[in-house]
Amino acid sequence: MLKSISSPNAISGAPSTDPIGVAVVGLGYWGPNLLRVLADTPNVEVRWICDLDRERLAKFEHRYQAARVTTHYANVLADSSVGAVIIATPVHTHYDLAAQALRAGKHVFVEKPLASSSALADHLAELANGQQRTLMCGHTFIYSPPVRAIKRMLEAGTLGDIYFISSSRVNLGLHQRDVSVIWDLGPHDFSILLYWLSELPTNVRAVGRDSIVKGIADVAFVTMNFASGIVANVELSWLAPSKLRRTVMVGSERMVIYDDGASEPVRLFDRGVVYRDPETFGEYHLSYRSGDILSPKIESHEPLGVELGDFVKAIRAEDRMEFHTALARSVVRIVEAADHSLRNGGVQVCLDNSGISDQLAGRREVALA
Amino acid sequence: MLKSISSPNAISGAPSTDPIGVAVVGLGYWGPNLLRVLADTPNVEVRWICDLDRERLAKFEHRYQAARVTTHYANVLADSSVGAVIIATPVHTHYDLAAQALRAGKHVFVEKPLASSSALADHLAELANGQQRTLMCGHTFIYSPPVRAIKRMLEAGTLGDIYFISSSRVNLGLHQRDVSVIWDLGPHDFSILLYWLSELPTNVRAVGRDSIVKGIADVAFVTMNFASGIVANVELSWLAPSKLRRTVMVGSERMVIYDDGASEPVRLFDRGVVYRDPETFGEYHLSYRSGDILSPKIESHEPLGVELGDFVKAIRAEDRMEFHTALARSVVRIVEAADHSLRNGGVQVCLDNSGISDQLAGRREVALA
Amino acid sequence: MLKSISSPNAISGAPSTDPIGVAVVGLGYWGPNLLRVLADTPNVEVRWICDLDRERLAKFEHRYQAARVTTHYANVLADSSVGAVIIATPVHTHYDLAAQALRAGKHVFVEKPLASSSALADHLAELANGQQRTLMCGHTFIYSPPVRAIKRMLEAGTLGDIYFISSSRVNLGLHQRDVSVIWDLGPHDFSILLYWLSELPTNVRAVGRDSIVKGIADVAFVTMNFASGIVANVELSWLAPSKLRRTVMVGSERMVIYDDGASEPVRLFDRGVVYRDPETFGEYHLSYRSGDILSPKIESHEPLGVELGDFVKAIRAEDRMEFHTALARSVVRIVEAADHSLRNGGVQVCLDNSGISDQLAGRREVALA
Amino acid sequence: MLKSISSPNAISGAPSTDPIGVAVVGLGYWGPNLLRVLADTPNVEVRWICDLDRERLAKFEHRYQAARVTTHYANVLADSSVGAVIIATPVHTHYDLAAQALRAGKHVFVEKPLASSSALADHLAELANGQQRTLMCGHTFIYSPPVRAIKRMLEAGTLGDIYFISSSRVNLGLHQRDVSVIWDLGPHDFSILLYWLSELPTNVRAVGRDSIVKGIADVAFVTMNFASGIVANVELSWLAPSKLRRTVMVGSERMVIYDDGASEPVRLFDRGVVYRDPETFGEYHLSYRSGDILSPKIESHEPLGVELGDFVKAIRAEDRMEFHTALARSVVRIVEAADHSLRNGGVQVCLDNSGISDQLAGRREVALA
Repeated sequence: MLKSISSPNAISGAPSTDPIGVAVVGLGYWGPNLLRVLADTPNVEVRWICDLDRERLAKFEHRYQAARVTTHYANVLADSSVGAVIIATPVHTHYDLAAQALRAGKHVFVEKPLASSSALADHLAELANGQQRTLMCGHTFIYSPPVRAIKRMLEAGTLGDIYFISSSRVNLGLHQRDVSVIWDLGPHDFSILLYWLSELPTNVRAVGRDSIVKGIADVAFVTMNFASGIVANVELSWLAPSKLRRTVMVGSERMVIYDDGASEPVRLFDRGVVYRDPETFGEYHLSYRSGDILSPKIESHEPLGVELGDFVKAIRAEDRMEFHTALARSVVRIVEAADHSLRNGGVQVCLDNSGISDQLAGRREVALA
Repeated sequence: MLKSISSPNAISGAPSTDPIGVAVVGLGYWGPNLLRVLADTPNVEVRWICDLDRERLAKFEHRYQAARVTTHYANVLADSSVGAVIIATPVHTHYDLAAQALRAGKHVFVEKPLASSSALADHLAELANGQQRTLMCGHTFIYSPPVRAIKRMLEAGTLGDIYFISSSRVNLGLHQRDVSVIWDLGPHDFSILLYWLSELPTNVRAVGRDSIVKGIADVAFVTMNFASGIVANVELSWLAPSKLRRTVMVGSERMVIYDDGASEPVRLFDRGVVYRDPETFGEYHLSYRSGDILSPKIESHEPLGVELGDFVKAIRAEDRMEFHTALARSVVRIVEAADHSLRNGGVQVCLDNSGISDQLAGRREVALA
Repeated sequence: MLKSISSPNAISGAPSTDPIGVAVVGLGYWGPNLLRVLADTPNVEVRWICDLDRERLAKFEHRYQAARVTTHYANVLADSSVGAVIIATPVHTHYDLAAQALRAGKHVFVEKPLASSSALADHLAELANGQQRTLMCGHTFIYSPPVRAIKRMLEAGTLGDIYFISSSRVNLGLHQRDVSVIWDLGPHDFSILLYWLSELPTNVRAVGRDSIVKGIADVAFVTMNFASGIVANVELSWLAPSKLRRTVMVGSERMVIYDDGASEPVRLFDRGVVYRDPETFGEYHLSYRSGDILSPKIESHEPLGVELGDFVKAIRAEDRMEFHTALARSVVRIVEAADHSLRNGGVQVCLDNSGISDQLAGRREVALA
Repeated sequence: MLKSISSPNAISGAPSTDPIGVAVVGLGYWGPNLLRVLADTPNVEVRWICDLDRERLAKFEHRYQAARVTTHYANVLADSSVGAVIIATPVHTHYDLAAQALRAGKHVFVEKPLASSSALADHLAELANGQQRTLMCGHTFIYSPPVRAIKRMLEAGTLGDIYFISSSRVNLGLHQRDVSVIWDLGPHDFSILLYWLSELPTNVRAVGRDSIVKGIADVAFVTMNFASGIVANVELSWLAPSKLRRTVMVGSERMVIYDDGASEPVRLFDRGVVYRDPETFGEYHLSYRSGDILSPKIESHEPLGVELGDFVKAIRAEDRMEFHTALARSVVRIVEAADHSLRNGGVQVCLDNSGISDQLAGRREVALA
């Protein structure tokens, strides 16, 4: 029954132009965006909108008249015309909802982070693999044009060897009730770093403070070491005088500043230090190089559209999105480790990267849209 | 006759208007500034200029014709008309030169950091105490108008309780040959934090990297916890696309950004979060407050002039500068701890603050010029 | 019965809570915004949507199902349930459409500029007066929170006497096909200046250039003199490396920068020059004062909503909006004069302000929302 | 007698390495800078320092012991070892002092502006020509690295055809007692524009205001038309909330912003409008192009050193500096015209450019250092 629609063969079969039926589950902050973009995606049909809140449902039922609404997830899973489920619910529900959908033979797109623990994230990945279904996690930032532009610079060797990365993602609010600022804002930075570097950190530390609400850290300073020698520092905060989303990456050849939201989001600095070996002089000599600064033109398109398009393409191509899944699992590992460190006085947490590193490194790039 | 000048009694005697004779030792990067300012300070006479490099000496001999020049420090110490010695030599020489001068009965001003280890710094302080001489360390930043303006805000309670501090001091160059970026740039930030908070951290951690020269860290991320709950993160680097000297301090009532070198170095943000207790509602409620932003007028004067004026005043008043000495000793402890942590994979280093905390807290402010 | 609605008496009658029926004419760039806001305005009912383009009509018919659509303006005018007509068509059609509506007994809201010549603008005002209908022109900028905040500063005397104003409104694009950059961008600045100063310029000059399209000036520098002595310079351009919408106003007590679109749109500088009379010294003495800089918190609300709310209130109150109409007529005079000057080599054009100045000055402020 | 030293032959003779003797006249604001740089210029000997103020003389006598000081200009002129006179006195004295020096057979360097009227400036040029002496005016900005960098872009055609230029040079203070802001700040912008464009404006207009001191305009908006079609607007003011020295130049291919004093003084924008002829479509079509932004590395050197080096080279080479003289004469013409326009209600003033245009255009570039 399910096979007729949701089997990979049917979906990706050469002559098939059958649309994929999807269900959107969760209409809180991000769900409505997913719904809007899916409604505009060719060959996708929104069959169900699911949420526990009837008022919300009513509002969206009016706007998307072709879709049916329900408060019962089971209705969604039982519908064989639904090929893929899009989950945008609170983090602690991700695993259950995604696992049920995979078991029902659906492809699954889950909002980030993939799950509330690395064990659950790993298990979801295994399940998807076993079910031969596509599992994707919504790390939208790796589809944003500035992040992509910097990825291309890295691949072209423009920056040389990377020495270190320093990032700030701070803002006034919004405090989350159930998770720390690391779970809330960290996935953005961690996914970007993993995407750029194709490498997991070997250890993570975090210190921070629960300034406003007891037990919920609202500021955190996370440091990471990578096997390649790269060091990264990530500042995350819900308490800041002004919004800042800025990452500096220093390489041996050039340096880059990524300032999300600025009119010039990427600035490339032709600056560096030249080290001369002490062969002739008996001691080394350094000279500082300072050249042009370039703000490359960054195209503007909505990352979410490309991301969901990739999900659909992957379903049709029976692509299991190894890199994406590895990245999503890695993000959860880093978040989990950083949160653990913060709760334990900044203790160093080593990451067990066996089984992920290869996938992350093996496919060094996501196909660019 | 000369004796009457260099004895503390004579110097601070009420009717005395006799000038203080000083010697400047070390004419590298900072020494010439000290010399210039001392030459303009009333009731101070530069008697000796001392350096190992004869060429440098010749240059300054020409400019300051009233002073004698020498490559022999002993000449300086033997001259009873010299009441105070100003030391601006490399860090590893601070202890020896300062100790000799104190033992010779001179007052001593040493460039920051006070000494190359906390043990040596403590010993210098003891020696000064035993000799009843004034020992001051040149933490010029605590005399800079923006830093003073923020100190006044803290004293007035403008910021409320401080939650955390995030600071960046980065630039392209100049690499030091003998010490890490923590020893080079750290004293600036650490002295400012100690001055503002009147409190030593209880523990320190640092991670970083020796990107260019093996064994000399050129980037470091230092985190500190304070007993009061304050958390601080300090980024230090000789590798950066552009110069940044920026400190953000987040308090319960307001937030402030100190951007050294900007046309508006201090910006006060009337922003914060209001926490309402869950008494009535069963759960807490947060609201975000966002008001005016103020760039107060900051007077401009050369901090070094005020600092050296303070040194002279302290000598005349037989003031042992407890707060200053405690601050200088504390800076060395933090630098030492951070450097140790960085060399040991980011391990947490606890500070033994016995005997310093009281001095630091007891006199909560430096008399404002 | 319908009569009772559209007659001013009925509308403003104390017990009346009858909604006002409106028609929106023109669905190009701005019309859809008017439609969206009107649909959300209490006690307003959109009865008709009118445009010559059937495709556009179809699109909006779907979205606003309670309204009827038509390509025939006569249908709108013939409907006695329509109390007010909202016109957002090209400038050259404003007069005809507005005049017809007024003659049909409707209240009228016209997008800026009011008409394509000052004679036509004056005639519309007369007609509205004769018909005892409310005529309002959509100078939305005078409802924007930063412009209002500066108006309040002026009324409070915060700036002192105004010396001069310098403004830039530049961008890359969009070239208009039928009118110069003065007709396109000028009304924004001119309406703001008139609102702030409550005073018409006595003469206007403009130089510029038709850089891209022959006969259509795409850059203009407009200068104005006011009877009070104020001088204003307004730079308008569709050719600029980056968007800038910035006005500097220099007063005897303080100076203000209004930077539309910046995160701190209003910045108040406590700076100025103190002139001391040459009584005692034989010659005058100047001293420069430089104090704090303040970025006041600016509330954020959609100006268009307040503006249309004002229109509705005016209709109900039988308020003929003398100040608004005088302002709208003045804007057309300045645009017309500047355009004439530009086409004639920058010749000075004097404005005949009889009959407008009093209305503009008599009511120095628009009631603040 | 004079011949032996100051005759061009002697000075520029191939084997000659004789130094040029110079006198610096006027030690107010700028004179000390000239003195400092001349003292460091190879093959230049400062023979005299001349000023009416004995105190100033005493101060500089001490610093430049090889030079003689005098309050009598005649002493300077009578000294045959003086080959060139450097004049940095108030504007109204330029003509007399320079003319005397030229008649005495000296080469002359005069601070900008060259003279207090175009007639006097022209006369000085004639005199220098008749005397076969080098006359140079200190328009230092055309030696500044950012201005040079933009000149090279113009020569390379990087910007395409220039459409217009908009410039702001504003600051708080310092009011001059004898001349308007046009005479004070205008020469900077006018010299830069003339250097870049190699073209004089055909007419000039200015409006402004004497806000603080009666009769001394402290703000002015100057507009210029050039025969090539270029339009320029220059805002000059001693009354401004913050310092701004910014010039925008819009060309058919690219646009450039020159922001003097910014960390990135030159920013090149690959932006423009593409006009497609209405051949096929019946009407024209515009498209907007927006590419990279480049901040080229600008070398840093002191413009004054290069400028005075050029003066010395010109003396030795018997170069009469036609372009420079034409530029200096042109600056005075524009200043004079703008000042006249401002005093006469903004009337258009046409420039008679016969005899200057060729020199300005004929040698399109100053040899780059």
